[in-house]
Amino acid sequence: MTEYHPGLDGVVATESSISDIDGGKGILSYRGYSIEDLAQNSTFEETSYLLLTGELPKKDELNRFSDILAKAMVLPPELITLLKAYPKNSDSMFVLQSVVATLGSFYNVDFDAEKLKSNDYDSNYYLDVSANLLGSIGSVVAAWNRIKEGKEIAQPSADKSYSENFMYMLDSEKSVTKLINRIINATLILHAEHTINASTFTAMVTSSTLAKPAQVIASGIGSLSGPLHGGANQKVILMLEDIGKKENVKGWLDKRLSSKQVVWGMGHREYSTKDPRANILTEMVKQLFEEQSGKVSNMFETAMELERACDEKLSQKGVYANVDFYSGILYKEIGIPVDLFTPLFAISRTAGWLAHWIEQVANNKIFRPTQNYVGSKPRKL
Amino acid sequence: MTEYHPGLDGVVATESSISDIDGGKGILSYRGYSIEDLAQNSTFEETSYLLLTGELPKKDELNRFSDILAKAMVLPPELITLLKAYPKNSDSMFVLQSVVATLGSFYNVDFDAEKLKSNDYDSNYYLDVSANLLGSIGSVVAAWNRIKEGKEIAQPSADKSYSENFMYMLDSEKSVTKLINRIINATLILHAEHTINASTFTAMVTSSTLAKPAQVIASGIGSLSGPLHGGANQKVILMLEDIGKKENVKGWLDKRLSSKQVVWGMGHREYSTKDPRANILTEMVKQLFEEQSGKVSNMFETAMELERACDEKLSQKGVYANVDFYSGILYKEIGIPVDLFTPLFAISRTAGWLAHWIEQVANNKIFRPTQNYVGSKPRKL
Repeated sequence: MTEYHPGLDGVVATESSISDIDGGKGILSYRGYSIEDLAQNSTFEETSYLLLTGELPKKDELNRFSDILAKAMVLPPELITLLKAYPKNSDSMFVLQSVVATLGSFYNVDFDAEKLKSNDYDSNYYLDVSANLLGSIGSVVAAWNRIKEGKEIAQPSADKSYSENFMYMLDSEKSVTKLINRIINATLILHAEHTINASTFTAMVTSSTLAKPAQVIASGIGSLSGPLHGGANQKVILMLEDIGKKENVKGWLDKRLSSKQVVWGMGHREYSTKDPRANILTEMVKQLFEEQSGKVSNMFETAMELERACDEKLSQKGVYANVDFYSGILYKEIGIPVDLFTPLFAISRTAGWLAHWIEQVANNKIFRPTQNYVGSKPRKL
Repeated sequence: MTEYHPGLDGVVATESSISDIDGGKGILSYRGYSIEDLAQNSTFEETSYLLLTGELPKKDELNRFSDILAKAMVLPPELITLLKAYPKNSDSMFVLQSVVATLGSFYNVDFDAEKLKSNDYDSNYYLDVSANLLGSIGSVVAAWNRIKEGKEIAQPSADKSYSENFMYMLDSEKSVTKLINRIINATLILHAEHTINASTFTAMVTSSTLAKPAQVIASGIGSLSGPLHGGANQKVILMLEDIGKKENVKGWLDKRLSSKQVVWGMGHREYSTKDPRANILTEMVKQLFEEQSGKVSNMFETAMELERACDEKLSQKGVYANVDFYSGILYKEIGIPVDLFTPLFAISRTAGWLAHWIEQVANNKIFRPTQNYVGSKPRKL
């Protein structure tokens, strides 16, 4: 029996080769590549392939993977019928978890524990299942948003990239500049993986029962829906709206800190520096405003002022802006509805969850920790 | 940093007062009461109340709880519309995970992390939410089975107990004897809780993000759907059908053991004795055959012979029959479709998952274990 660490803080739950964090230096890497390198120079397809297999794809490998992704983005008619049966005011994360749980009825994403044991699965099996899930989940998010708004579904096409298809399905009228496309790719890449966070851990535990991969992803989405996990960038937007303008920052922050309330988007358990993902986003927000209008929005000004004020008050405690601080502003500026921020996070993290699914089943032992029993002594009815 | 234990075997993940196992003595207790006592003398409503609150209900408490349960069993029309939109050949566990993820759109099962912090929730809040989820999940399983078979949904009524309503909704034509009703209650009670198994652990991790309770249960269902967790009693039935008759047992077992294949329903990580739940079921199977026809079925004879043969070969290794060994035979004899065995397990375990949800959020720290990174060294694109 080991000592009890609440939240399993500091407890090793797995050996993993997928991502690594150096919290003191502010470094996050996927399969050895720094997040900066990937966010600037790769696409979501390439980074997903990297996470899933351990290596970046060669040209023909990428083509094969992208083809399956694009095909999977075309939702089967029965799945669209199902999507239309949800109450229109449903929370998008409820719908996403719900639809993902059924993907085994619509896509070739089966998983047979017996075949696993006899080593009947080659690496293409895992890639193809992953591409089917990644493709469909992106389309489900976009299609649900259309259906909720009473619009027809926009169809993806095979000659578009993942990010292009997603943006087109979300709003087929909107022109997506090269910079916006780069930003969408970067945010998808930045949110794809982050070692053993709560949703990834959930996905690992579900994987360890040899459940089907769609069930694994649906479980991960359940955890991501919690306000302590996903959803922080939505809170940042609400908080910035609450502050109103940069002149209000100082007074707001003083009150907030003296009442010991959290400042959304500030601080991360894993980093004692600024979250490396936040650095990348800060740069991109600036470029976006440059391209869009030449001047920044009131909300961004408020955010920059808040970050500066927090730096003064909190940085000696190792509390700096995290990935959620600017991602919401970025999404908002691009025109993505606030309600979709967490589902977008889920699309992205699906790549990481699937990488952990593959790693888990390759060397599986079912998770069954123990407990300190602190309850009633034996008694009779 | 702690030593790595695959599957977190032996690692304390929580302090809990819900259930306790003494694997050497073969004792399982809920809140201090032995499982034998509860299975013989309480109903599923009473045991659920016990798991959720720590104490058995007084008469008025039970009435209140049962009323909410019975009301929740009446599915809202929009939920029935949704159920009808699933492809009829969908796996029942996919549908169950999927529908449960949407219950927040149909029932009063919201959960506000801010209200939790300010202690705005009294114990009735947790009980009412739990009753809504427990009631609806039972009806969803029964209703889905009717819809799949092209039948109209049978409506539950307020003057029936949970088990009576469930059996009526499943097959309104069938007469349910007192013994069968006792057996349904007993199997629901026996499967309701079992310390920190994989699905309960999944539910705890999802709870720790302060996700909504329906999301927590949907995640638990994902893990229960895995063949290493739920579903073993279905495998037992297939295995017994494969053996065919008691005369074949010896030959079949010799072959099975020499090829190192698993004997389904035999052995449990937590017990070095016969699983106490299996003892209770063995007795009930006998009573059921007595009542039904006065003689046992071929399948039960085969099972008893297999247990005897396994006792000879495996008991010195501490491998005895577990809860799954006889529960399938019992369900089959009662007329429950094999496809519903695991969903029935899920209904039952929902009581335990909710008890752990309540315990987790009352004293929460988000689960974020760590990893041993064994991947690629830093490299450049």
